[in-house]
Amino acid sequence: MAGFVSFVGSGPGDPELLTLKAVDRLKRADAILFDDLSSGPILGHARPGADLVGVGKRAGRPSPRQDHVSRLLVDYARGGGRIVRLKSGDCGVFGRLEEELTALRAEGIDHEIVPGVPSACAAAAAAGLPLTRRLTARRVQFVTGHDVTGELPEEMNLAALADPAACTVVYMGKRTFPKLAALLKAHGLPGTTPALLAEGVSTVDQSLTRTDVDTLAARLSQARSDLPALILYGALAHETGHD
Amino acid sequence: MAGFVSFVGSGPGDPELLTLKAVDRLKRADAILFDDLSSGPILGHARPGADLVGVGKRAGRPSPRQDHVSRLLVDYARGGGRIVRLKSGDCGVFGRLEEELTALRAEGIDHEIVPGVPSACAAAAAAGLPLTRRLTARRVQFVTGHDVTGELPEEMNLAALADPAACTVVYMGKRTFPKLAALLKAHGLPGTTPALLAEGVSTVDQSLTRTDVDTLAARLSQARSDLPALILYGALAHETGHD
Repeated sequence: MAGFVSFVGSGPGDPELLTLKAVDRLKRADAILFDDLSSGPILGHARPGADLVGVGKRAGRPSPRQDHVSRLLVDYARGGGRIVRLKSGDCGVFGRLEEELTALRAEGIDHEIVPGVPSACAAAAAAGLPLTRRLTARRVQFVTGHDVTGELPEEMNLAALADPAACTVVYMGKRTFPKLAALLKAHGLPGTTPALLAEGVSTVDQSLTRTDVDTLAARLSQARSDLPALILYGALAHETGHD
Repeated sequence: MAGFVSFVGSGPGDPELLTLKAVDRLKRADAILFDDLSSGPILGHARPGADLVGVGKRAGRPSPRQDHVSRLLVDYARGGGRIVRLKSGDCGVFGRLEEELTALRAEGIDHEIVPGVPSACAAAAAAGLPLTRRLTARRVQFVTGHDVTGELPEEMNLAALADPAACTVVYMGKRTFPKLAALLKAHGLPGTTPALLAEGVSTVDQSLTRTDVDTLAARLSQARSDLPALILYGALAHETGHD
């Protein structure tokens, strides 16, 4: 008899940002398949004897192929018991959830999705910034700064992304941001648009830098840390004295 | 000596979707100012004797004026102790956070922001839908379907919202969706674009309806429940057999 898979969003990294439901699923799991970014003290909730299986996806490093991860998940589920597939942030945001759901469906394996705190929300909270603003930023959008090859995705909706009245959050975009910034400016985004670089959000390495699009693009074309990062730009509120 | 204010995102409604940090802040609070949508069993974490103050903001009903809420928050904080300002979902997403932050800053009152699970993430999880898809939906966007007057906001970026390759989530948009849908179609969005109506997300009243933009607009122009709802449309994944 096949097992039951819980896709669980671990939140941005701070173990205190796990939900109660996530903790419950971790405690009851027979096996936990985790990405690098969702590991650390969070796995301390696992019961002794649970299988902890790193599947090693991390921006900027070689990763297992997605089909291998999906296969591994199916194999564990077929073995029975309670399986947790732990994903950083919210599992439905840039987490390759669809491929794994499709693999489970093909095998008729029962599953649930436990949503988590997206890294974008944690980054904004850490910086004291609302993601939306009543009159000036009624639209917030999340995009990824790299595709499966590691390059800036083709066919981005640059007009939507160059809107200075939205708040835009770029996931995994440090390396490609100089190129993206040039494209956004070509589509009318002022280089003086406020920006925030949020690295290692909600971890001990957290670093928050308020800047603007031009300055950030110049900086990231010169030097970058290996910390995972989000870039926010657009109609960002003023400093709230919080970092 | 002034108190300390924690803005806390309560998540979408299910008390199990509170974060550990949210529970900690609720347990230690001397006063909790909450919206209707963030109340119920969640307030059961408050310690005996804590002040529980409803500030009654709920879509579709008359609400206290925002400046009154901000004033009340400042008054509580000035009285000292630990104050929690509980907001449904993530507090930085359509939560009028900026006005309250500004009021606290003006008084020099210390504060923090504890992010939560946005209702959009919970709606997608409940429906078995990833918010992003690897090749076909690399952009997800959240917008509000009503402004302070209750009408569809003016100056929406309709080109960005009419993009069938994005996944768009409309908050508080049931009443205005027929009008929005007409505008989106005028900007090129096919009426056959997949849509999801997610009502009472993560509560016992939860109702999920897979449909398309045209059908949903027609339905919402005829009859609507009073349940708070999100509307998702765009590059939604196929059914995952989950509801």
